[in-house]
Amino acid sequence: MAANGANLRQMTMNFTSDNAYGAAPEILAALADVNSGTADSYGEDEITARLARRFSEVFEREVAVFPVFTGTAANALALATIAPPYGAIFCHENSHIAVDECAAPEFFSGGAKLVHLRGRHAKFAPAAVEEALAHYRGGVHSPKPSAISITQATERGTVYRADEIAALSDIARREGMTLHMDGARFANAVAHLGCTPADITWKAGVDVLSFGATKNGALCAEVVVFFDPARVRDFEYRRKRAGHLASKMRFVSVQLEAYLKYDVWLKHASAANRMARSLGEELSRMPGMDLAHIVEANEVFVHVPMPLVQKLREAHVSFYEWEQPKNGRVLLRLVVSFLTPEKDLSALVSLMRG
Amino acid sequence: MAANGANLRQMTMNFTSDNAYGAAPEILAALADVNSGTADSYGEDEITARLARRFSEVFEREVAVFPVFTGTAANALALATIAPPYGAIFCHENSHIAVDECAAPEFFSGGAKLVHLRGRHAKFAPAAVEEALAHYRGGVHSPKPSAISITQATERGTVYRADEIAALSDIARREGMTLHMDGARFANAVAHLGCTPADITWKAGVDVLSFGATKNGALCAEVVVFFDPARVRDFEYRRKRAGHLASKMRFVSVQLEAYLKYDVWLKHASAANRMARSLGEELSRMPGMDLAHIVEANEVFVHVPMPLVQKLREAHVSFYEWEQPKNGRVLLRLVVSFLTPEKDLSALVSLMRG
Amino acid sequence: MAANGANLRQMTMNFTSDNAYGAAPEILAALADVNSGTADSYGEDEITARLARRFSEVFEREVAVFPVFTGTAANALALATIAPPYGAIFCHENSHIAVDECAAPEFFSGGAKLVHLRGRHAKFAPAAVEEALAHYRGGVHSPKPSAISITQATERGTVYRADEIAALSDIARREGMTLHMDGARFANAVAHLGCTPADITWKAGVDVLSFGATKNGALCAEVVVFFDPARVRDFEYRRKRAGHLASKMRFVSVQLEAYLKYDVWLKHASAANRMARSLGEELSRMPGMDLAHIVEANEVFVHVPMPLVQKLREAHVSFYEWEQPKNGRVLLRLVVSFLTPEKDLSALVSLMRG
Amino acid sequence: MAANGANLRQMTMNFTSDNAYGAAPEILAALADVNSGTADSYGEDEITARLARRFSEVFEREVAVFPVFTGTAANALALATIAPPYGAIFCHENSHIAVDECAAPEFFSGGAKLVHLRGRHAKFAPAAVEEALAHYRGGVHSPKPSAISITQATERGTVYRADEIAALSDIARREGMTLHMDGARFANAVAHLGCTPADITWKAGVDVLSFGATKNGALCAEVVVFFDPARVRDFEYRRKRAGHLASKMRFVSVQLEAYLKYDVWLKHASAANRMARSLGEELSRMPGMDLAHIVEANEVFVHVPMPLVQKLREAHVSFYEWEQPKNGRVLLRLVVSFLTPEKDLSALVSLMRG
Repeated sequence: MAANGANLRQMTMNFTSDNAYGAAPEILAALADVNSGTADSYGEDEITARLARRFSEVFEREVAVFPVFTGTAANALALATIAPPYGAIFCHENSHIAVDECAAPEFFSGGAKLVHLRGRHAKFAPAAVEEALAHYRGGVHSPKPSAISITQATERGTVYRADEIAALSDIARREGMTLHMDGARFANAVAHLGCTPADITWKAGVDVLSFGATKNGALCAEVVVFFDPARVRDFEYRRKRAGHLASKMRFVSVQLEAYLKYDVWLKHASAANRMARSLGEELSRMPGMDLAHIVEANEVFVHVPMPLVQKLREAHVSFYEWEQPKNGRVLLRLVVSFLTPEKDLSALVSLMRG
Repeated sequence: MAANGANLRQMTMNFTSDNAYGAAPEILAALADVNSGTADSYGEDEITARLARRFSEVFEREVAVFPVFTGTAANALALATIAPPYGAIFCHENSHIAVDECAAPEFFSGGAKLVHLRGRHAKFAPAAVEEALAHYRGGVHSPKPSAISITQATERGTVYRADEIAALSDIARREGMTLHMDGARFANAVAHLGCTPADITWKAGVDVLSFGATKNGALCAEVVVFFDPARVRDFEYRRKRAGHLASKMRFVSVQLEAYLKYDVWLKHASAANRMARSLGEELSRMPGMDLAHIVEANEVFVHVPMPLVQKLREAHVSFYEWEQPKNGRVLLRLVVSFLTPEKDLSALVSLMRG
Repeated sequence: MAANGANLRQMTMNFTSDNAYGAAPEILAALADVNSGTADSYGEDEITARLARRFSEVFEREVAVFPVFTGTAANALALATIAPPYGAIFCHENSHIAVDECAAPEFFSGGAKLVHLRGRHAKFAPAAVEEALAHYRGGVHSPKPSAISITQATERGTVYRADEIAALSDIARREGMTLHMDGARFANAVAHLGCTPADITWKAGVDVLSFGATKNGALCAEVVVFFDPARVRDFEYRRKRAGHLASKMRFVSVQLEAYLKYDVWLKHASAANRMARSLGEELSRMPGMDLAHIVEANEVFVHVPMPLVQKLREAHVSFYEWEQPKNGRVLLRLVVSFLTPEKDLSALVSLMRG
Repeated sequence: MAANGANLRQMTMNFTSDNAYGAAPEILAALADVNSGTADSYGEDEITARLARRFSEVFEREVAVFPVFTGTAANALALATIAPPYGAIFCHENSHIAVDECAAPEFFSGGAKLVHLRGRHAKFAPAAVEEALAHYRGGVHSPKPSAISITQATERGTVYRADEIAALSDIARREGMTLHMDGARFANAVAHLGCTPADITWKAGVDVLSFGATKNGALCAEVVVFFDPARVRDFEYRRKRAGHLASKMRFVSVQLEAYLKYDVWLKHASAANRMARSLGEELSRMPGMDLAHIVEANEVFVHVPMPLVQKLREAHVSFYEWEQPKNGRVLLRLVVSFLTPEKDLSALVSLMRG
């Protein structure tokens, strides 16, 4: 994948990533609100305490929550807690933990093995797990099957339904494995499904969730959510020694508090989803173009004729080419943020319709 | 060490830590300034690029800089870069890396050994290193001497002079070791010595610096500074897989940019130092009290009669008791931030004078 | 894979593994020869010193050699020396390091990633490396391509020719990667090719070799051979801290000395290869059976009708079923040791023809 | 510590280490006895199964035993099983795990911290643990107290009595820690105390034992013994991925079987102890010499005048100088093996009496 090299400026139209956009105004304001006075450091403050209660409301059950700075940290810390150093973690071959985190789960776990599964639309089905498991029954010669990790929404902008998650959870339970969900775009998935947060997590058998906020409006705030306090074990030691326990934690926690307030998180995710879906519909009607996946969250993957790429670049549109060109066409990834200007979308459609 | 359990509120007088205070207004404002528009993610943005240039100016030579979220991450990543998994790292037995980071250096390095040295006022001298080295010449039976790490200002609020650092650097060079400085309170040290940043770093033989900003006004921003680009090696891979490469890096980098701007960092550190020194002078004159260390940075360590502790707690003063009581006296740590209200200092002095 | 559960006794015919057989008489005798008197411990003895010289002769150049107890240790220590914790190691999806060592390379390296390549007959070609490399050019988001590891002879009893190795070495050099060879059955490969040990190692671009002896006659002795002393770095620290530096090293080294003496190693490997080839030829002529791979070393992989499996088990023949049955046939692995009695081979052929 | 550099030959008198001597004849003979026929590999053989039963008899309770090649592996694997990566392990500052294993416990555990305790005669008392614990109650800022490790016999040839062990076990239980014993010279301790193996292990509260055999007659065989099967957890995965699961395990297990047979282990240890005690008594009567520790096992630590060292070296006596010379005297370590010729002892005494 290659973005256009130049630094992005405001006159560009930016579809590279939701990370390319700034923070939600509600969140930025919240930082200023908590700046005065003093607070206990390292997460012993009142805001962080409130946060745990708020998450328990959102998820309709007592949960244990641990804010960290990044999604990579959330995933790697969660996985290291549920998989031993000699464990095997089953995940999609396109998942962020498999290909975009520089082997962070391997590092944090002390050498666990990520088993890459295949499946259409960046999702995998129970059969893929069963097939892989057959190779991990050799006793101590293979790592011990320990966890299944799914991404919600996936790296291709698709979404697991509750029943699909439950089917994977069934295998996890049967095999004594733990089910992890990478929810870097969890809000987009909830917004798409119109379900409750509980429906696609613990009610469907998810044990641990990396709950993302950064892509959808925070500056640097993610949360590891454990649905079963007994599984938390010594998570806090791991977070500290990884350098992810903020000394001035209130500034992380308050981002999350604001994120959840008045359903700000779902409002923004819905907006991004809606724009992406609309973009996808427009593109799918254009000749020579094909959506690679149905647009369920805030990402559009579209095969386009190669000459179009150059044209877009010249018009200062930035985006990633997601795969090597094939048969004269390239797969583009176009990500939409709730902060993406509507006019950029219109301009992009015009350019592509060309 | 034990702080008073209650959550701190504004009516308390807080001397527990510089981390208990919020962010400098200059830094909070800078966050809002860079929020609009888009920026390349993961450190490819313009602000981060500018930051490298700015640090090179501050240190009067080409340096390589890598922002991270916390001091623990800065230290552990720096040490893992300069010490192999089978390395020995020589540090003070009171140093933050030795006792306050939950063995983060051991984790990041893959099992290097921290050799705890002794020395008055939380500093150690060349002789302590020489003595310890004698036990690490047994070939492969002992870890390989790889790094020396010093803290500036130290955990007891004292400061290494340039010549003291140079003497340690001489041993490091002779033995093929690398010299690291934990500069969580680097600004306070520079402010105290009235020297240039270069004087007590590369000019005195420091190879890698953990440059702190959080305690002195940032929300969550520290920097690893390499004075010799050849030693950087693959630092960026390590940062990424540790989850310390911010996706929206501009929000970390801009904190550091603001921190360095118009000498804001030294202004704040000087203010904190001045208040701490003044507090120390007052206390040293009181009967039954003794400073444990000369006050050179923003921390005061004072032995006080045990009954005073209860009195302070009742007056809602918060602080740490730093050691077990001995001979009817307790060692208190009183930390002053540039944001500590002058009136809190006066009130504290009154209370203690009793 | 599943062996027959019962403990193997002498009346069984054992084709499960070369590990099922004992030690070569020459090696057992050598142990007794060096038992009297004293010797410096931890590898400082004369026998170990002689061993380095002997290996240099065998490989026709100065080499650095480090005896260890097992092949897993040899591979994992070698790979940890040449790949950093954030490295990617390219290997065949059927390789021992990928599927039979419980993620030892991940453990020893501190979390490097094994990238599984595909290829017929358990070998892979340059094109497979190139294709995989395309996914590892994303900068710090992916582990850094650091090593290629090939197995000689492979896990399917096939052998890389010198030119095939050289072609992989070319990519390694171009990309700044190191080429490792897992030579658990190196003797069988040399015996098959009729080449010199140098021809298929350093002359073909191999940098580090795990030289096996256990399967071919030792009790517990393998050697890591570095062809370029500059790459050895601090291997000895790693071996010690992994518990693979024998205190009474003479007993490991003398196994290797005896193994190399009078070409004992090649004599045994040739005998095993010859018997395996002969077995393969017999089986290939039987109706309903097909060799899955050409027999180049001491292993025969043959697809047989399912009813035959039960018949063999009843006749006390032990072996592994290597894959799930398909279309009424099962893939058997039949391994031949130089100690396998000729009569067992005849009896097996009779049973299978039966 | 420095041995004389020259390779040791038979005409030297060797007091450097019990590792300098060969194997017990009973053990060497046992290797030959099991060489014929085939056996299941990787520990699935009958000899290894018998071994578990034999150890259960020796320790008078059901135990789980895992043979490995070296003491370093036994210790590091045992500790990694009972201490998490974020754990603290309390041990003597002179212990083998602290100073002679190149940080193997740190490596195997994934970065646990060894807390070095002080105490006379290489032993430590409950008070030393209590004092250290006070620094590990800071919550997540310090590693979690997880294990206590003691050495039996100690690195200075002294022995813990059952009641001393029980006192340490009491603290371990109270704090939720596990008690490990490094028994590299366990036989010497049992022989000295005239107790049963059970008396100084599980009956005194030891949870895990590294049971040594190599120093006392094996070629390369140690065993990790778990007294509570529930604590074994996934030890076997750890052993495999560390390369310490022997493929031809029968050759390791049979060494241990022979070692335990007919009380061979205690016979040899008693012989070595007796010679060492006798040597100690002789030396203690010589002018200018002082035993540093009472001789309870097979090691003599004696302060001698510096000129004597040169004299001994010239007479081809080899040994270690254990500390830097002080006040004109040097501390020598003289280790006696059951294979040490009586005439060497007499000659040494004559030379020293000189």
